[in-house]
Amino acid sequence: MLSIVLLAGGSSSRFVPLTDKNLFPFLGKTLVERQLQNFSKFSFDEFIVIGNPENKPAIEAEITKLGIKAKVMVQVGEGQSGAVNTALAEVNMEGDLLVVNMNDVFEDSLLEKFNTLLPELRSEKQNMLTGYKVSKYFPGGYLVHENGFVSKVVEKPGAGNEPSDYVRLVFDYFHSKQELLANLKKASSSKDDVYETALTNMMGSGSKFRMLDYEGAWFTLKYPWHVLAMMEYFLGTIKGQTIADDVEVPDTARINGDVIIESGVKIFDGAVVNGPVYIGKNCILGNNALVRGSNLGDNCVVGFSSEVARSYFKSNVWLHMNYAGDSIIDNNVSFGSTAITANFRLDEANISVTVKGEKIDTGLTKLGNIIGPNVRIGVGTKLMPGVKIGAGSFIGSGLTLAQDVEANKFVDGKTELVVKDNKVDITSKSREHIKQNI
Amino acid sequence: MLSIVLLAGGSSSRFVPLTDKNLFPFLGKTLVERQLQNFSKFSFDEFIVIGNPENKPAIEAEITKLGIKAKVMVQVGEGQSGAVNTALAEVNMEGDLLVVNMNDVFEDSLLEKFNTLLPELRSEKQNMLTGYKVSKYFPGGYLVHENGFVSKVVEKPGAGNEPSDYVRLVFDYFHSKQELLANLKKASSSKDDVYETALTNMMGSGSKFRMLDYEGAWFTLKYPWHVLAMMEYFLGTIKGQTIADDVEVPDTARINGDVIIESGVKIFDGAVVNGPVYIGKNCILGNNALVRGSNLGDNCVVGFSSEVARSYFKSNVWLHMNYAGDSIIDNNVSFGSTAITANFRLDEANISVTVKGEKIDTGLTKLGNIIGPNVRIGVGTKLMPGVKIGAGSFIGSGLTLAQDVEANKFVDGKTELVVKDNKVDITSKSREHIKQNI
Amino acid sequence: MLSIVLLAGGSSSRFVPLTDKNLFPFLGKTLVERQLQNFSKFSFDEFIVIGNPENKPAIEAEITKLGIKAKVMVQVGEGQSGAVNTALAEVNMEGDLLVVNMNDVFEDSLLEKFNTLLPELRSEKQNMLTGYKVSKYFPGGYLVHENGFVSKVVEKPGAGNEPSDYVRLVFDYFHSKQELLANLKKASSSKDDVYETALTNMMGSGSKFRMLDYEGAWFTLKYPWHVLAMMEYFLGTIKGQTIADDVEVPDTARINGDVIIESGVKIFDGAVVNGPVYIGKNCILGNNALVRGSNLGDNCVVGFSSEVARSYFKSNVWLHMNYAGDSIIDNNVSFGSTAITANFRLDEANISVTVKGEKIDTGLTKLGNIIGPNVRIGVGTKLMPGVKIGAGSFIGSGLTLAQDVEANKFVDGKTELVVKDNKVDITSKSREHIKQNI
Repeated sequence: MLSIVLLAGGSSSRFVPLTDKNLFPFLGKTLVERQLQNFSKFSFDEFIVIGNPENKPAIEAEITKLGIKAKVMVQVGEGQSGAVNTALAEVNMEGDLLVVNMNDVFEDSLLEKFNTLLPELRSEKQNMLTGYKVSKYFPGGYLVHENGFVSKVVEKPGAGNEPSDYVRLVFDYFHSKQELLANLKKASSSKDDVYETALTNMMGSGSKFRMLDYEGAWFTLKYPWHVLAMMEYFLGTIKGQTIADDVEVPDTARINGDVIIESGVKIFDGAVVNGPVYIGKNCILGNNALVRGSNLGDNCVVGFSSEVARSYFKSNVWLHMNYAGDSIIDNNVSFGSTAITANFRLDEANISVTVKGEKIDTGLTKLGNIIGPNVRIGVGTKLMPGVKIGAGSFIGSGLTLAQDVEANKFVDGKTELVVKDNKVDITSKSREHIKQNI
Repeated sequence: MLSIVLLAGGSSSRFVPLTDKNLFPFLGKTLVERQLQNFSKFSFDEFIVIGNPENKPAIEAEITKLGIKAKVMVQVGEGQSGAVNTALAEVNMEGDLLVVNMNDVFEDSLLEKFNTLLPELRSEKQNMLTGYKVSKYFPGGYLVHENGFVSKVVEKPGAGNEPSDYVRLVFDYFHSKQELLANLKKASSSKDDVYETALTNMMGSGSKFRMLDYEGAWFTLKYPWHVLAMMEYFLGTIKGQTIADDVEVPDTARINGDVIIESGVKIFDGAVVNGPVYIGKNCILGNNALVRGSNLGDNCVVGFSSEVARSYFKSNVWLHMNYAGDSIIDNNVSFGSTAITANFRLDEANISVTVKGEKIDTGLTKLGNIIGPNVRIGVGTKLMPGVKIGAGSFIGSGLTLAQDVEANKFVDGKTELVVKDNKVDITSKSREHIKQNI
Repeated sequence: MLSIVLLAGGSSSRFVPLTDKNLFPFLGKTLVERQLQNFSKFSFDEFIVIGNPENKPAIEAEITKLGIKAKVMVQVGEGQSGAVNTALAEVNMEGDLLVVNMNDVFEDSLLEKFNTLLPELRSEKQNMLTGYKVSKYFPGGYLVHENGFVSKVVEKPGAGNEPSDYVRLVFDYFHSKQELLANLKKASSSKDDVYETALTNMMGSGSKFRMLDYEGAWFTLKYPWHVLAMMEYFLGTIKGQTIADDVEVPDTARINGDVIIESGVKIFDGAVVNGPVYIGKNCILGNNALVRGSNLGDNCVVGFSSEVARSYFKSNVWLHMNYAGDSIIDNNVSFGSTAITANFRLDEANISVTVKGEKIDTGLTKLGNIIGPNVRIGVGTKLMPGVKIGAGSFIGSGLTLAQDVEANKFVDGKTELVVKDNKVDITSKSREHIKQNI
């Protein structure tokens, strides 16, 4: 009895102002849908999704849509131990367990490798952790390993102190649920992270942990800007042009490169799509619009003379004469004409984003904005690189916004105008000389 | 002897900053020209146009151009009674009289209906008022009627108190000029409106007023934004594409839908016209310009990458990288690059316009700006929805204008700049990595 | 032994913030390269270029590249006398001398005329000055002449006091270097300009100065905006379309008129070039870009929906959704999205530029900006007509810049924002009604 536990119960507080990461669609499919479909290919016995009160209904709806037998539990208790305990209270306690992060994206090869290894793990009564080889420091758990077995997990050792090249990817196999449960109970009074303590105890008491060496692509959504790298990965999987039958491409428009264009999309004269690009259902590409290297969810409008470059639009994002570059925009957001995301510093330095009060260097020289759902941006407003705008906020017109905005705020400027009499008469001037220059 | 009196003598104060409404051209014809031509189709005997000192020369010029026999009088006295009295002092006092508002637009069917009814009116010695069936409250005169005859006119009864579904359209027939004159004289000491009092008196003394039930389209220009609805009506009458022989459409440009494009128009590569659209003589559509649902008078320039949507340009309006949406712009107006009309509120509420000190809900969620003649808008300036700009005013660059501007003003901002030393050296930076992303 | 001395040693202080004028390329060739190539066509004996410490290495590099035998000397002493003395200290003192301004552009006919005249000048032992007929006052030296000989040079006589129609173009021939050197020495204690004093003395003591009457085109670079007139001249010399073999023009792009497009240029869908235009090596014309009447040096990027009109870009100028009109931009300059050069005053008056503290009327109604090398302009910033920006300066975002900026400054604005709670809920609003209008 192999039970799969998919972890989606975190509060995503570092992901604010974006909404639940597990429900972010890429190429039209949410991570929930992707994971469930991927695991469904193999004959595993039982699915448990650990969610939270907010995302539970949406995850259940996805499960129903897919026709997969899976159960969603609201996580009780903190961290991975809380999540796994919640699952263990629900699953059939016979047999083995696989614990996977819902928002980790990896290639099918990982599942295939695991599936191949599974009979041996069962016969040898071994557990398994998954290592991902990194070339530079990653702030996660490092696996100390020898002869294919993990002897220790070192959390965030700091750059230069890495005990190995392998960081732990949350794809953990336990041959006995009972043993795991017992060890989690034992560790529950630990001041350190309970789950990691349980692993250490198990290793100490002779349980074997194989290290699955995974070498494929791996993407996760810790910070909002991670959406862009994950998007780029998915866009890279598009091969050729898949354009729905009902989509008409005017002879003045151009679709170049690898694209998926879904049903109901309307394309106007002069619009250009430079793949890789995904365009969701019922989107509109207005006259002379340009979309490149981007993922547009359903019902987006890229209006006249707007450009979307390397950006992620969740759904219902509306542009009109705008530039959205290297930006992540949640559902139901509008930009007034000539409102702009700035995505590059004058000094060409790395762009920082403030997350939970801490300024974090994204490592990116190109990053636009992170915009929550239900936001309105006034005409001509300039959003500085890395600025985040909270859900439900309105930004007035003609502003230069260089600070983050919390949810449900209205930001306006103090424009002072000076009104004087105008002494110049232009009624009689001939404009013919100007006309020459058009 | 049927005399037609066309009323065009009002001061149009609610129409400010736009100039005389009677001289506004739609599809290249002013309302004056349209009315005179429409009435010329029927064999009426005499035309009198009641104007004012400002519009008299222009109306006379139109009459001369058309080769119609008509006389323009400057209105003496206030209101419709003043206008009609002015006419009666001039016309042949034999026979009957038709009084019509110059800026009321109706279909030919009204004139045809009237023409059919005329012999009967004459033989029965009856007068006639015209009723227009409305489905919601309209702030005009309501006709109380029975068996096809009007018994009373109730001025602005207020919503909910309407005595009937019919509002009075100023298209009044009197079988005897003499009788009308006598009643106007009698009513001249009235504190109420003299013309309405005269009508009431006539009805009271046994004169019969037929109600002509008009069911076609009717548009009038009370407020500036009414230009848009009237424009939409006229644009709707364009069928197919009528493009002057001398107009060349580059193979990269597109003319879609129903359009009229007049002689001398120049169209550059990549320009798009999405009908219904009227484009007057010698207009220029620059590269990648977009015009849709709009009426451009003569000599307008829609420069590079500009969009005109659902807007009325009287003549000599010059754009360059702008958006003009749901706006009405009088003669000789220029927009600097990236100057923008905002036409939609962030909260999606109805847009109000201040007219003669009173804030009026236009009932429109999309409305841009109302701009008088000889106005200049600086580069990058944002005009908020519903803002009006008076004739001869200049608006500086980079401003956000959220207030109306009177005539002949110069509006500027107080920009305070901070100049510091720049410590960053970018001379040596390679820009190759950026180039990858273009 | 005819020695040619090309003067390029001036400090170009009036040309600031632009860099050395002699090294400005037009149609891909610097003035240095052009002059050396032009003179190389004739069999002159010796080339001396008088430079300054800054431009010497670059001029030497050009000479090496051309494979011409020429020597570059750093000017010692002020003015033309300093420059010629520097040359005389280096040249073979046998024979004759021609002195020419490096940044004067004239047609081949001048060299041909001189070449034809040369045998006679030598046999008659005459010198030569060059007169250029002007129709309005020019602030230079006027030639008093009779029977083809110059009797006097009057420096800047002031409008109305011109002694003739001929101004002196610096293209001076001396049949004897020795005589010139002697006279320069004699005049060296003069309080007036030594060179002009020497000429006057020579004329006084019987030396003959022929006047070469030159009637072709002549352009010089005194002020920065003179670049535009010189550019227009060179653009006018382009005939037909010369497009490098490796340049692909998409079928949605258009190349109109006379153009030169160099190797490595990339052109995207919807781009338009309206000649006369020169586009240097490895430039990129993005989607829907427009270039007209302009000279783009190597490695420029005219990004999405940008227009370059009648402008000179030296090299590595990067646009993205901008308008650059009637502007001169030096090497390595970037514009953030929707940053704009304003090139026309609201009052349509002539545009003035401040040069060395003095406000100078350029005589132009259309003039954008003069921008030094290594400048960055933030998104949405508006540059007012005639404003100059010094080398290495950064201009922040969303500003309206109406003042000159010195080198190496960082200009920012004082934006005060007001953040309030937003009471409007738009999550539930249907956007369908808006979609109708796209």
